[in-house]
Amino acid sequence: MAAIDELRDRLTEIHDLGRAATLLAWDERTMMPPAGAEARAETLATLARVRHEMFTADEVGRLIDRARSEPGADAPPGESIDADLIRIIGRDWDKARRVPSELRAEMARASSIAENAWVEAKERSDFAMLLPHLERNVELTRRFAECYDGFPGFSRTYDALLDEYEPQMSTEEMRDVLADLREGLVPLVAEATENGEGPGFDPFTGEFPVESQRELVKQVIGELPFPEGSWRLDPTEHPFALSIATTDVRLTTRYNERNLAMALFSAMHEAGHGLYESGVDPELGPTPLSDPRSLGLHESQSRLWENWVARSRPWLERHLPLLRERFPDSFGDVDPVALERAANRVVRSLIRIESDEVTYNLHILIRFELELEIFEEDLPLTDLPEAWNARYRDYLGLEVPDDAHGVLQDVHWAGGAFGYFPTYSLGNVIAGQLWEAAGRDLGDLPARIADGDLASLGEWLRERVHRYGRRLSPSEILERAGCGELTVEPLLQHLRERAALAAAA
Amino acid sequence: MAAIDELRDRLTEIHDLGRAATLLAWDERTMMPPAGAEARAETLATLARVRHEMFTADEVGRLIDRARSEPGADAPPGESIDADLIRIIGRDWDKARRVPSELRAEMARASSIAENAWVEAKERSDFAMLLPHLERNVELTRRFAECYDGFPGFSRTYDALLDEYEPQMSTEEMRDVLADLREGLVPLVAEATENGEGPGFDPFTGEFPVESQRELVKQVIGELPFPEGSWRLDPTEHPFALSIATTDVRLTTRYNERNLAMALFSAMHEAGHGLYESGVDPELGPTPLSDPRSLGLHESQSRLWENWVARSRPWLERHLPLLRERFPDSFGDVDPVALERAANRVVRSLIRIESDEVTYNLHILIRFELELEIFEEDLPLTDLPEAWNARYRDYLGLEVPDDAHGVLQDVHWAGGAFGYFPTYSLGNVIAGQLWEAAGRDLGDLPARIADGDLASLGEWLRERVHRYGRRLSPSEILERAGCGELTVEPLLQHLRERAALAAAA
Repeated sequence: MAAIDELRDRLTEIHDLGRAATLLAWDERTMMPPAGAEARAETLATLARVRHEMFTADEVGRLIDRARSEPGADAPPGESIDADLIRIIGRDWDKARRVPSELRAEMARASSIAENAWVEAKERSDFAMLLPHLERNVELTRRFAECYDGFPGFSRTYDALLDEYEPQMSTEEMRDVLADLREGLVPLVAEATENGEGPGFDPFTGEFPVESQRELVKQVIGELPFPEGSWRLDPTEHPFALSIATTDVRLTTRYNERNLAMALFSAMHEAGHGLYESGVDPELGPTPLSDPRSLGLHESQSRLWENWVARSRPWLERHLPLLRERFPDSFGDVDPVALERAANRVVRSLIRIESDEVTYNLHILIRFELELEIFEEDLPLTDLPEAWNARYRDYLGLEVPDDAHGVLQDVHWAGGAFGYFPTYSLGNVIAGQLWEAAGRDLGDLPARIADGDLASLGEWLRERVHRYGRRLSPSEILERAGCGELTVEPLLQHLRERAALAAAA
Repeated sequence: MAAIDELRDRLTEIHDLGRAATLLAWDERTMMPPAGAEARAETLATLARVRHEMFTADEVGRLIDRARSEPGADAPPGESIDADLIRIIGRDWDKARRVPSELRAEMARASSIAENAWVEAKERSDFAMLLPHLERNVELTRRFAECYDGFPGFSRTYDALLDEYEPQMSTEEMRDVLADLREGLVPLVAEATENGEGPGFDPFTGEFPVESQRELVKQVIGELPFPEGSWRLDPTEHPFALSIATTDVRLTTRYNERNLAMALFSAMHEAGHGLYESGVDPELGPTPLSDPRSLGLHESQSRLWENWVARSRPWLERHLPLLRERFPDSFGDVDPVALERAANRVVRSLIRIESDEVTYNLHILIRFELELEIFEEDLPLTDLPEAWNARYRDYLGLEVPDDAHGVLQDVHWAGGAFGYFPTYSLGNVIAGQLWEAAGRDLGDLPARIADGDLASLGEWLRERVHRYGRRLSPSEILERAGCGELTVEPLLQHLRERAALAAAA
């Protein structure tokens, strides 16, 4: 038996255990009776440990080495599934072997404790309550990064952190992209909000019975180019999308009886994630190559369907009759222009997850810059609230009244996830470039959307992005899709249009 | 580290993978988008293979041997968790090592193919379509039984088959019990139906909107002594109950808009299974000792709650106001006596799953006797339909019009499950004995049920049956509960009362 075949069999086995873990995680957040939480945590920990042990086994390393010397193993990225598997999994294996199990376990324990502390700290708006836990997380994360001393391609602490979420993207590249974004965004936000940003007319606020919302959202998701019978949609507290297989996509959304925008746009967002996972080449299905490559690429797909498609005039106009039919009190008298404006208001706000498309990336920039200061300039964590507030003043012109509305708002750092935030903005940047390229290839995208043709865009994305799974990096995908190098210009152009709409309101 | 501790850790790990497989199976039958079926089959196969490999490893055998010689390992059943673990898992390991993986895989493949063939054969009522697949299943099952030549306690082919579902019960013991049952039942059925068995008055037949049924069933299950937040109920095609952990029980039922009895009594049946799994000693939770001991014991719990509790006059009378409130057209004018009679009609019928409590065990007897003829008297499978029909004539006085209403009605044999059927009747026998003993210990059980006190019975069952998990055999449990040896008398007495009710109608 060739080493590559034996390797693939082993990886497929481990990947199948990963599918089981994914279902357990989905169930935990949508279906599980509350009393099952403790047993579920044990089962998930067991699955993670078993998978880790199976993957980091010496024998897997030997198979990778042998497979590397078999014919065809050096084909360039995207040319041969086997060669891609060896290249990508070889790197995974080298990485996985660097971090001692005890450190991983300690990080999991510490962040679990910190997340619990965070809930209370946020409730009381008391940063001091979180501080010792945050310090522990940062210390452990530093030790984690040190495990990668001398790892190929890593030249600084943050490289190892970013690589967990955005493999093979350097800190420098990310910093350059986000700096370009900042340069364009700060004046844009000022301009879009100079005529005020009051509550304005908002038909998405009102009375929306959950059952009617559910039916609307199901209908809207049903128009997307999913293969038949391959997805489901459930309510949850914090919406997410997962797939157990390319043929088994689990979407979730959250219903707010006073606000229709939450369920509608978050469902389109999660559906974008789901379409990505659904579009992976079936040949990669049972192997780890079918996993998504990077959070940035993943987020590009959710943002594209949420912001470029669902907040566009043609999409909204096409769905106005549906909105009117289900919610006549709210949408009976609304015209398409007003609907588009309502879906695209620009308001400087303190809370990231409530922010609009134009201001959103400034929230991310602030977090990314602070992460760099913590890990590379030794910013004392006691100074973190102050540093946070100063940046909100500088970039958004807002005073942070308390830490609950400031540094305590997100769970990520309590959860030990440093290096995660910038991938959100990277996703927006990539979405802008892909949207531009799809428009070039397919012709008038807004006209297609107005006609209800979402299949063409879906097919383009599947062909250019989804089908590769982990085989290609975001920059390789952008290049092959004719987008050139990573650039913020298409995103900025898109946001300028949004800002102009807001300024005209 | 003591061998028993190391062994327990390993078994806990394997058991956790089993929990994951259980959730995958539940999801497959309640939630999974249909397109996910193929990937799910792969994932379940992988989990089964990985668990089997982990369990049958030489190292596990060495640990069992070492643990057997550690202090306390020879404590009698029920005295020490560790000793029970070594005894029971040691036997599992010996059994698991006897059957080659290839044979297991071949059996799984063959029965999967046969089940598909069965669907069409049943639809066309064409036994010949199933025949070659059945022959293959029987041949593989014979090879399976041969793997146990000389296994301690096995003295005939059927012993190995029965042991898969009812460990350590001999064919002889089962045959004796079921022969006693037949002797009592055949005249009882004749007597109960001698005044005719026409459709009669049936308030459970009518118009019952699914949503109202769902609410009713949830309320009724909510009265059962489950720990709070530890169960859920979902619709499915073929009702079942599973638990992911003692704190995470998944019940299912099926709604028929024309018949309320289906959802109501099947939900009580599945809840009985669920209460059993929920009542296992939490200390056994993460180990394989928390699995149920035998199908017979499991079925005793579902039957007890379905038949002894929910079909009793006090339970029905107590819920009559609820039935009247939700379904006034059907139950508005029904009195408790009529309700009890309607829930306990005796009708000789051709289909096992539609049969009543009194005739049910005759259906099982027929299948058990035919299984013995197939495996121990070489009954040619071509003669199976004729042998089937002859027994329906003898025991139930019915002519079988075609094989769809005869030998093709159940999936079990197509699925390769020989030795399974008799456990259904064993469950009824055990339920009769436990009910009698609980009545002795708790006093007037019907009065408790009339008062809505289900907790006392629940607690008694948890204490006497559930908490032991796999630690004790059914006969050990019966003995400790003061029931003496296995005997059909309490069940027959119960069925005589049912039959008298029917005869008086």
